[in-house]
Amino acid sequence: MIVVMKVGSPEEEISRLTEEFTTWGLSPEKIVGQHKVVIGLVGETADLDEQNIQEISPWIETVLRVERPYKRASREFRHGESSQVVIPTPNGDVTIGEQFPISIVAGPCSVENEEMIVETARRVGAAGAKFLRGGAYKPRTSPYAFQGHGESALELLAAAREASGLGIITEVMDTADLEKVAEVADVVQIGARNMQNFSLLKKVGAQDKPVLLKRGMSATIDEWLMAAEYILAAGNPNVILCERGVRTFDRSYARNTLDLAVIPVLRTLTHLPIMIDPSHGTGRWEYVPAMAKAAIAAGTDSLMIEVHPNPAKALSDGPQSLTPDRFDALVKELAVIGRAVERWPEPQVALV
Amino acid sequence: MIVVMKVGSPEEEISRLTEEFTTWGLSPEKIVGQHKVVIGLVGETADLDEQNIQEISPWIETVLRVERPYKRASREFRHGESSQVVIPTPNGDVTIGEQFPISIVAGPCSVENEEMIVETARRVGAAGAKFLRGGAYKPRTSPYAFQGHGESALELLAAAREASGLGIITEVMDTADLEKVAEVADVVQIGARNMQNFSLLKKVGAQDKPVLLKRGMSATIDEWLMAAEYILAAGNPNVILCERGVRTFDRSYARNTLDLAVIPVLRTLTHLPIMIDPSHGTGRWEYVPAMAKAAIAAGTDSLMIEVHPNPAKALSDGPQSLTPDRFDALVKELAVIGRAVERWPEPQVALV
Amino acid sequence: MIVVMKVGSPEEEISRLTEEFTTWGLSPEKIVGQHKVVIGLVGETADLDEQNIQEISPWIETVLRVERPYKRASREFRHGESSQVVIPTPNGDVTIGEQFPISIVAGPCSVENEEMIVETARRVGAAGAKFLRGGAYKPRTSPYAFQGHGESALELLAAAREASGLGIITEVMDTADLEKVAEVADVVQIGARNMQNFSLLKKVGAQDKPVLLKRGMSATIDEWLMAAEYILAAGNPNVILCERGVRTFDRSYARNTLDLAVIPVLRTLTHLPIMIDPSHGTGRWEYVPAMAKAAIAAGTDSLMIEVHPNPAKALSDGPQSLTPDRFDALVKELAVIGRAVERWPEPQVALV
Amino acid sequence: MIVVMKVGSPEEEISRLTEEFTTWGLSPEKIVGQHKVVIGLVGETADLDEQNIQEISPWIETVLRVERPYKRASREFRHGESSQVVIPTPNGDVTIGEQFPISIVAGPCSVENEEMIVETARRVGAAGAKFLRGGAYKPRTSPYAFQGHGESALELLAAAREASGLGIITEVMDTADLEKVAEVADVVQIGARNMQNFSLLKKVGAQDKPVLLKRGMSATIDEWLMAAEYILAAGNPNVILCERGVRTFDRSYARNTLDLAVIPVLRTLTHLPIMIDPSHGTGRWEYVPAMAKAAIAAGTDSLMIEVHPNPAKALSDGPQSLTPDRFDALVKELAVIGRAVERWPEPQVALV
Repeated sequence: MIVVMKVGSPEEEISRLTEEFTTWGLSPEKIVGQHKVVIGLVGETADLDEQNIQEISPWIETVLRVERPYKRASREFRHGESSQVVIPTPNGDVTIGEQFPISIVAGPCSVENEEMIVETARRVGAAGAKFLRGGAYKPRTSPYAFQGHGESALELLAAAREASGLGIITEVMDTADLEKVAEVADVVQIGARNMQNFSLLKKVGAQDKPVLLKRGMSATIDEWLMAAEYILAAGNPNVILCERGVRTFDRSYARNTLDLAVIPVLRTLTHLPIMIDPSHGTGRWEYVPAMAKAAIAAGTDSLMIEVHPNPAKALSDGPQSLTPDRFDALVKELAVIGRAVERWPEPQVALV
Repeated sequence: MIVVMKVGSPEEEISRLTEEFTTWGLSPEKIVGQHKVVIGLVGETADLDEQNIQEISPWIETVLRVERPYKRASREFRHGESSQVVIPTPNGDVTIGEQFPISIVAGPCSVENEEMIVETARRVGAAGAKFLRGGAYKPRTSPYAFQGHGESALELLAAAREASGLGIITEVMDTADLEKVAEVADVVQIGARNMQNFSLLKKVGAQDKPVLLKRGMSATIDEWLMAAEYILAAGNPNVILCERGVRTFDRSYARNTLDLAVIPVLRTLTHLPIMIDPSHGTGRWEYVPAMAKAAIAAGTDSLMIEVHPNPAKALSDGPQSLTPDRFDALVKELAVIGRAVERWPEPQVALV
Repeated sequence: MIVVMKVGSPEEEISRLTEEFTTWGLSPEKIVGQHKVVIGLVGETADLDEQNIQEISPWIETVLRVERPYKRASREFRHGESSQVVIPTPNGDVTIGEQFPISIVAGPCSVENEEMIVETARRVGAAGAKFLRGGAYKPRTSPYAFQGHGESALELLAAAREASGLGIITEVMDTADLEKVAEVADVVQIGARNMQNFSLLKKVGAQDKPVLLKRGMSATIDEWLMAAEYILAAGNPNVILCERGVRTFDRSYARNTLDLAVIPVLRTLTHLPIMIDPSHGTGRWEYVPAMAKAAIAAGTDSLMIEVHPNPAKALSDGPQSLTPDRFDALVKELAVIGRAVERWPEPQVALV
Repeated sequence: MIVVMKVGSPEEEISRLTEEFTTWGLSPEKIVGQHKVVIGLVGETADLDEQNIQEISPWIETVLRVERPYKRASREFRHGESSQVVIPTPNGDVTIGEQFPISIVAGPCSVENEEMIVETARRVGAAGAKFLRGGAYKPRTSPYAFQGHGESALELLAAAREASGLGIITEVMDTADLEKVAEVADVVQIGARNMQNFSLLKKVGAQDKPVLLKRGMSATIDEWLMAAEYILAAGNPNVILCERGVRTFDRSYARNTLDLAVIPVLRTLTHLPIMIDPSHGTGRWEYVPAMAKAAIAAGTDSLMIEVHPNPAKALSDGPQSLTPDRFDALVKELAVIGRAVERWPEPQVALV
């Protein structure tokens, strides 16, 4: 932590601060610059809050953090190595991580009925997906829009899991529903709007199922990693980070701006595995293939893609869903890039 | 709802769509332009989703909504009149609304101990505040930061309420805590990070205490009003909208960008009363007086201002808190503007 | 300048850097933290570029600037005092600055014909404006939109100046037009889109007329002050900073987000006077009164307001223009706030 | 153009408007909805301005544009086909377009001296680049930073062109320099900060050299295409669109957010060829390889990459430059993706 003093700070004030910091168990070191004095704080500073330090003297101009605010999520925590998340599914364990082949998650925005979800599961599984996504509880901007079938949809997901052998990824929105969701889900999803629902983060951190943590609509990378830190600190080491587009000034064509540069950025900051969601990330199925291919070329560990048997009749998010036929075609295109970067799953080659 | 067809759309496709819309109970009306055809949908379109309509034909270029997506929150719902929220407090009813004097909410970010919260309540009450704010449950970016004293802080708020006669405004973060919070609070606050926590919105809508709904960090005005609609639709008509700064590209000085233009904008869209929070809205107490005065001049109905007896020792948000002495001085400055716009409470004149 | 080294940086590399910095004439001071080493650079660092320093070693994690990058624009440059810009007009000198009454600039987006501009000048002058604004050269998003009457419009501005006695503020877009513009204008305006047109900044800095520097649509405050620094460094000390709204994620109602918090922020950073433009800042005349009043309460030194005798027929920016009658009414409302903050021009009292 | 009337608009006002539109040579068609009336304007509406229409009646709620505002830049203008730009270079014609192999532009931010620029040209040419980039005139945030060597740097670029056979791409910042720049450059670049410098756009549109148009830092796609329209409308059909990252709320790691989804979006809107600049787009060379590969997978027609023989000593933009050795390695990685998508230039295979 670096404390920058204002021009003209009185010598006594600097001495007073130096003593104060010493009582905190820190070793303050003073650098006298041409115009300004800065004080470096040596010691255990990770838990200190820049804003609180700033307030201890009106002569402090600014406080700069040198240490990163997250620990367990940091790449250093694993000594520079990446980590992976192993997810048991009926078809066997699937591992998501930097050293492993790319996994695909596919399925509809929301679970509508048994036939639809089982059929979608079979189709995306046949095309090569390892996981079925599908919402039982849906965050919707309007109270008058379809809110998901809730508990009964969880049963349908269980049926689709059995029928297809795929792992299930589904969202939890309320701490009160977590137990039920975790019973069915192989991976519990925290949606973008709940990325800083800290009560929910603590509770998914205190249970055993892996967690897919979507980036908030306007969350910085540091805030996203701090949200992951909540889960890790609560005891659950299995967190996957999912980029799904951020909000910018232009939403005329793509609904969000898919920030693919998080891939190389996150590699330097964290050991956690990465997923990219080009369906929410762009909001239109026409843009999904280009961005899914780009994500693979940029080094993603997994992809989440919306597929619906009949997008025109979808109860939510129709315009960003691919039909199963288009998804089949897309997986073939993805395989070309996936093989070029040597991250395409071998058994899947036969299927494609 | 206006459906714009792509250039070159086949006549049969337009006929097919026209028939489809008719089966939905709508009266489609076709306008043949120089290059494009548009179809106007007449009938009950408020519940239709633009995105779903878009998907029914690949020849649809875009779908434009003509009706606003919210009903109960709209100004038309009250025939163009504003509404007000009446809040019973130990000192009597306080009314927040466009036709009423400005109310001030003041207090610390979080409740730290009894002495501190009671003392703050007395000081801000003496200066003219009608409500005490103070967090029992605190949303914090870091899991390692102080998270609020929770349930025990609620008791301290009750003590401060009794000691000062002020109404209490405090945040609820988890549906599981709502009952306890609503027992103590005169107004239940939904924080910016939970503005789209739809489970929580439904539950605060299903109880009786008035709700202060903070705008999400990157929420559009329509999304904010739709969040209010969740509460209204669940049966609670007492919602106050609180602007607390949005996230933009520049956070070097002010932490957020306080969007004061929401005041005239909301007046045309909604009947709900408005509060402005310049403390979170700027993130530094030095900027609070200018923005609080601006908010009054722009027509706000109420203000929320952070006050802490000793900001340097605050467990959270110190840099944006005023001391009680500075708050006293600020209220005097606010009174000057408040009287100029004829919205300053009369009995308070004596106090200032 | 603070150089933060990566965790595990080799001792030799730190020594090498220390020597390198010494050869630059700096005194490097090393602080050994618990995990990281930081090097403070003491000496003349204002001209150093953080990015270039970063590149001198792959072991540098980040470089933090302690000194502000601007000098002449900084408040310290005037020893903490504000500066003012004195502008001679036919009606006498007008001074814009923190210690002076508020000045109003009013007029149409573009100069359309002699009658219209002379009439507008008279009306806004009668209402209390000191300056007439009006575009001869107009930046327009579309090449097919009206681009301003150019040189002939300058003559009409000169006529309006003579007829009304008001000072003239008009925009220059091309270095080739500067001489002609400066002949007529009392203040030369640099528009938001040209805030970082550095060729133009240098040239307006090398002439004598005061410069109104509008903030770029997504310019940070530091970038804005650096743009002012270009003009100051080229020799022209008379710069007024004009906030006109920034671009954010929500443009459904207000076209831009008027960032009024720049007023208290700029007061701590710079000595330069401030103008607020609520017309461009919101994009709709209905929102202008609330934001103009707010700007005065927040402490602006001057206001720029669009007025057009017949906004419905305006060749550009109609929706944000007030009619002269509405402007008359607005000035009366502004006077109420202006007097409350004791910054309303005395002679004008008679007019209002 | 669709005119949406407010709820409760009087019948006479609607009639009046209908007549007014008729006098403009348009055929207004009225649709009476459940709550609102909308008027569709049929006829030549491309040159009409939504904002001006809005002002003709206080009863108009909003005006929605159905036609796109650009013509020559639109894909429809080429009947759905892409266009290409053919650039003569000493080594022969290079074609940039959707149906052609990917072209690479490489070189330093600014031209520093003859040896450096000639050496860089040789190295990047040997690795497979077709064009040398290098700034003679540099837009710099600070007036105290290196501003480019100007005219003398143009001569060095000519020397590098002759020595390497590469085409030259260099930026023009001032209309006064255009002639000199166009003499040396094979492609004239308009930088992000000048994307809406309309004087400059008109002048590059009135000369013969192809134009590389960088997207403004916060320009919408429509604004970017309108800037291209300025050049096309002035008579120059050879425009290449270059995405270089947009400004968002998070700049802690990547300096800008590279918006790769523009690739599929632009394909549906325009016939113009596309370039991606991952160096400015991320601001750090470590992130360049991932994003360059992603750009190819997403379908870009060309790439612009900063290469500097000694980034640590670069006079500008060092941290985003690759060394020639790293560039060699990167081109080999790019070739893998380029061949997978069948857009890698054949003769280059031998070189790699």
